[in-house]
Amino acid sequence: MVEMPPPPSCSFASDNAAGAHPAVMEALVAANTGHALAYGSDPWTAQVEDRFRELFGPRSRTLLAWNGTGANVLALASMIRPADCVVASQWAHIVVDETGAPERILGAKLVGLPSTDGKLVPEQLHELEHQIGVMHHAQPGVLSITQSTELGTVYTADEVASLCDEAHRLGMTVHLDGARIANATAALGGTVEALRSFTVDAGVDVISFGGTKAGLAFGEAVVYLNEALADRAVYIRKQVTQLPSKMRFVAAQFDALLRDDLWIHLAERSNSLATRLHAATATIPGLHYDAAPEVNSVFPVLPPSWVAPLQSWCFFWPWDPARGQVRWMTAWDTTEDDIDRFAAGVEVVAHYN
Amino acid sequence: MVEMPPPPSCSFASDNAAGAHPAVMEALVAANTGHALAYGSDPWTAQVEDRFRELFGPRSRTLLAWNGTGANVLALASMIRPADCVVASQWAHIVVDETGAPERILGAKLVGLPSTDGKLVPEQLHELEHQIGVMHHAQPGVLSITQSTELGTVYTADEVASLCDEAHRLGMTVHLDGARIANATAALGGTVEALRSFTVDAGVDVISFGGTKAGLAFGEAVVYLNEALADRAVYIRKQVTQLPSKMRFVAAQFDALLRDDLWIHLAERSNSLATRLHAATATIPGLHYDAAPEVNSVFPVLPPSWVAPLQSWCFFWPWDPARGQVRWMTAWDTTEDDIDRFAAGVEVVAHYN
Amino acid sequence: MVEMPPPPSCSFASDNAAGAHPAVMEALVAANTGHALAYGSDPWTAQVEDRFRELFGPRSRTLLAWNGTGANVLALASMIRPADCVVASQWAHIVVDETGAPERILGAKLVGLPSTDGKLVPEQLHELEHQIGVMHHAQPGVLSITQSTELGTVYTADEVASLCDEAHRLGMTVHLDGARIANATAALGGTVEALRSFTVDAGVDVISFGGTKAGLAFGEAVVYLNEALADRAVYIRKQVTQLPSKMRFVAAQFDALLRDDLWIHLAERSNSLATRLHAATATIPGLHYDAAPEVNSVFPVLPPSWVAPLQSWCFFWPWDPARGQVRWMTAWDTTEDDIDRFAAGVEVVAHYN
Amino acid sequence: MVEMPPPPSCSFASDNAAGAHPAVMEALVAANTGHALAYGSDPWTAQVEDRFRELFGPRSRTLLAWNGTGANVLALASMIRPADCVVASQWAHIVVDETGAPERILGAKLVGLPSTDGKLVPEQLHELEHQIGVMHHAQPGVLSITQSTELGTVYTADEVASLCDEAHRLGMTVHLDGARIANATAALGGTVEALRSFTVDAGVDVISFGGTKAGLAFGEAVVYLNEALADRAVYIRKQVTQLPSKMRFVAAQFDALLRDDLWIHLAERSNSLATRLHAATATIPGLHYDAAPEVNSVFPVLPPSWVAPLQSWCFFWPWDPARGQVRWMTAWDTTEDDIDRFAAGVEVVAHYN
Repeated sequence: MVEMPPPPSCSFASDNAAGAHPAVMEALVAANTGHALAYGSDPWTAQVEDRFRELFGPRSRTLLAWNGTGANVLALASMIRPADCVVASQWAHIVVDETGAPERILGAKLVGLPSTDGKLVPEQLHELEHQIGVMHHAQPGVLSITQSTELGTVYTADEVASLCDEAHRLGMTVHLDGARIANATAALGGTVEALRSFTVDAGVDVISFGGTKAGLAFGEAVVYLNEALADRAVYIRKQVTQLPSKMRFVAAQFDALLRDDLWIHLAERSNSLATRLHAATATIPGLHYDAAPEVNSVFPVLPPSWVAPLQSWCFFWPWDPARGQVRWMTAWDTTEDDIDRFAAGVEVVAHYN
Repeated sequence: MVEMPPPPSCSFASDNAAGAHPAVMEALVAANTGHALAYGSDPWTAQVEDRFRELFGPRSRTLLAWNGTGANVLALASMIRPADCVVASQWAHIVVDETGAPERILGAKLVGLPSTDGKLVPEQLHELEHQIGVMHHAQPGVLSITQSTELGTVYTADEVASLCDEAHRLGMTVHLDGARIANATAALGGTVEALRSFTVDAGVDVISFGGTKAGLAFGEAVVYLNEALADRAVYIRKQVTQLPSKMRFVAAQFDALLRDDLWIHLAERSNSLATRLHAATATIPGLHYDAAPEVNSVFPVLPPSWVAPLQSWCFFWPWDPARGQVRWMTAWDTTEDDIDRFAAGVEVVAHYN
Repeated sequence: MVEMPPPPSCSFASDNAAGAHPAVMEALVAANTGHALAYGSDPWTAQVEDRFRELFGPRSRTLLAWNGTGANVLALASMIRPADCVVASQWAHIVVDETGAPERILGAKLVGLPSTDGKLVPEQLHELEHQIGVMHHAQPGVLSITQSTELGTVYTADEVASLCDEAHRLGMTVHLDGARIANATAALGGTVEALRSFTVDAGVDVISFGGTKAGLAFGEAVVYLNEALADRAVYIRKQVTQLPSKMRFVAAQFDALLRDDLWIHLAERSNSLATRLHAATATIPGLHYDAAPEVNSVFPVLPPSWVAPLQSWCFFWPWDPARGQVRWMTAWDTTEDDIDRFAAGVEVVAHYN
Repeated sequence: MVEMPPPPSCSFASDNAAGAHPAVMEALVAANTGHALAYGSDPWTAQVEDRFRELFGPRSRTLLAWNGTGANVLALASMIRPADCVVASQWAHIVVDETGAPERILGAKLVGLPSTDGKLVPEQLHELEHQIGVMHHAQPGVLSITQSTELGTVYTADEVASLCDEAHRLGMTVHLDGARIANATAALGGTVEALRSFTVDAGVDVISFGGTKAGLAFGEAVVYLNEALADRAVYIRKQVTQLPSKMRFVAAQFDALLRDDLWIHLAERSNSLATRLHAATATIPGLHYDAAPEVNSVFPVLPPSWVAPLQSWCFFWPWDPARGQVRWMTAWDTTEDDIDRFAAGVEVVAHYN
């Protein structure tokens, strides 16, 4: 029987296993004061809309929403034309992890293109060109990319710009699923300029701006950089069940998260802790990494016998069981001590297995 | 220029203009502790599921969701069969106030039957019988009733039972939109037995159990009394974008609201304050009520010239502008002092107009 | 036991109980010659597209389709924007007789407005104006009128123009369900100018142009008068399952029907035979008409005891059983002798009941 | 300049470029006699339903429909449960050639599995098992296989049975897209027993039974072998716009096609002519086949310079332009002379290029 060290204070399951940042929770509590009109006619919502305009420019338009799947569906429903399909990577959350919500609510085909790293390249769009204008095929209408990707990789601003250029050339618009846009921003420089470089400046049309994984209790935002696509958005939001009634409780949280770039700082931290975890475990015999982490997750390949004892000590999810790959994900509240304890636990299991 | 008294501390716009009850907010904050697996695999969710079983029996099954439109869509999507239509009153929230969300997400027709008080009667279902089995007509599949109704009325338990009997006879199932089920429960006796009398005992199949208007910051529940209809519900919840990831923040709130019948007590209070408001204003010359309130709203008919000065002093919504009818709605946090001040303001406006 | 005269050679059930006109069938057979590319890349389709341009002008665009429900869905799917609703009369085929096909395939609400004669008036649109811009309501997007209506009435060109003006003022587009557009054209003068007066000239945007009831074996057309709405139409047609593969067999029939105004002449005949039937039966004691026929159907109110013996002798459908109303409908192949025999039968039944 | 021989009398574009068989057309014309109630209440429909029961057994149930996409959508809409996905090969017509009709009308995800020959194997279903019961993934609900496949291959009865067994073990049902079921039947023995071996006997639940490509002018059938799935089918057919009104014209054609196994004999002929074409061209230098034909199409790889001159002489479609592959397809009306002329033309082009 292996004697394990004391476990970390948190799991490595997902960044949505963390709670809300204290400043966020404090803002949520502070917003609980008297009456405020529902559905966004409140001062908290007005203020957070200003904050988003500061990030993305005065012509951007932001709608708050409940959750990631909902934000994606709202964004895509604003973008898609009849008989269009949505093109994404085969790993995209919208393709594999939303129980067919996009197909059901959009009534549209999703095309999952092959990718080894979760990223797409313009040539893959180019190959779809022969479908355009052929009445028997769903028409490529929206490109959806994820930043940072489901596989923990990050598009450079140039890569996003190239995809946007090709998409626009083909008459498509571009959606960026930014459930972890904070981690990508941190990875690309950690500034608002970095954020703009791979969004507004690159030509993205609509963003799902993640709040939950970045430190909120709940709440996401859809940011329309292409104004024309926002035209019907307030109606669509209600229609796809994503209109919070006491909206101040979403707005106040986001306001706290965006203040003084807290969202970026939290992501810088979770990113750096993934790097620390990678460094602390990469040399353990029997464990293998395909790549160093770019954001807040590592994907080690382990002997199968390690997995259960480690999971029961400090939980995480399997990734690709066929090759013994698991995912360890840090969150905004993970600490250096958590990393060190976790790495120590892996060493113990490695030693006794 | 009219000299108005100091305004109430709250508006009379809607019960969703109120914030969260302090006990609810305290529970939400208390749940913000360390990591918890997402999507309901947490102890708060397990506990609130127990509470719902205490209310509705051990065979009931409860799923937490984001908001009212979402809970309704989730409930109906679990109930409807291909080519079914949903039958409701012409005033039903699902018919007029959800921007066509049910039609879009269910892909089904909603039939809004005429009603003067927001309630339906079994004879109206009976009249649909000739459509059953005719291939050219959408098949009456689900009856959706609202309790308390959008017009502030309440079905008796017997009335609900009669509707359920007729619906079941026709092969339909019954959904109860309980966005204000707390107010109805309070109006019908204020006990868990009262709740059961017009739900489980009456034969209702699925309930949208309202949390937001009852005192939560956000959160609704779908309660399946008919187990068979819950079969695919967890998948459908995700598919209709109603799966909260950090679900503990919904569960903890509901747990606080259901504890010691807080939800009923808050509704008793808002109901009684509507009665107080009615009593304090019914005799004001020029103002007319069709009926005394049954729950937490009154619908006075006023001279048009009263509306703007009153609204700018203490906001409320118009109801039927054609006949000068407005809606004054109390909330869980309305106080007797608010009522008295509001009534005083109405008297002043009445006097000077 | 009543001794009935010999029955007519045809029923009075519906104009879709008739077969195809001989010239139509001949054209269909003639098109069965060798190979032709599918999906409309054939000379028959090119020619019938020319014929439709002759009717509706060079900027109109016509797509052939299978059936009435399909043509309506294709038309509406080309017109509707996200979160729009379709406004029609409560009697509209799309509202009551298509098993919810529009709601399923459009994902949109249909609003059935009250009407005693199957026709709408501009004031009814005007009353919807308050919903426009309110995020909680489906947005009035498409007006769908039926010409001639399901109740056998006909809009004048001016009435259509007024509806189109009001709809366009509200930002809506106008669909005309012309399953019986031939009968309406015949009733309004029987010329191509008459057709244009209540379609192109009146401001209609898209027409479902009926073929089946006018004398085809099968086949309908969707005519886009508003070019912009045809933009995605070829993709939508395939997507809503309305793309005939061996399209020449639809095109050849339509070509025969449109040649030398055959479609108008056939409708003039069925219209006049309904008038003859009305004249021959209106004075029979016990039978009552609300109005004289405008097109090819009459709606007599009869003693209930007459219905079964008449139906078993020569079939027709009940209309409003509550008041003893039935529908007798003529078709392109009904003859004067059929009318005279049928009227004689009614007299016999009247006499013995 | 190449001197080409006289072209064949027909193209090699597709079996839907052929017209209707004379016996079919004769039956269609013969059905054009007097009045018949619409929507299937006619003797032709009753008779063809009997014929289908003779093929598939007394518990099977058949609904006539317009076209292949429509029949597939009707079949799948009868089978799918909420949150299910449809699993098919990446080459399936429903996946790539129906403009997203299934996604739009079913509101469901289609999963296209990789395949080199258009066929799936049970192991591919087995790999989906881990998704079952996980709320974040669309649930594998329906397996759709095509027989014969889009790549001109044929499942043996055992192969279909193995797929059905695995699908049923996983709680899925099985749809067979039989747009070319006649060619498959011919390839597997050319008897009704052969048909039964890979359908009823193998465990298939619902069939799209192709008529158009087999020799009709238009018309497909959906055959429910699993009675329970037919429960709502008549409503769904109307709802998905696939209910022919003058249904006798579909029924009469099918009756002629099914009489004396005409459908099988026609397919035997088109199959054998593809074999003849293969034999006559396989040895032409520069032309290459991956495999001999199993049904009525061959897929030669040609030098790019051959394609345009051949197409302008006798049309056919490209298949995989990247590798110079084209498709030559025979139809029920192709003759031996057509094959010989076509092969001669290929030889001429080969000689001069």
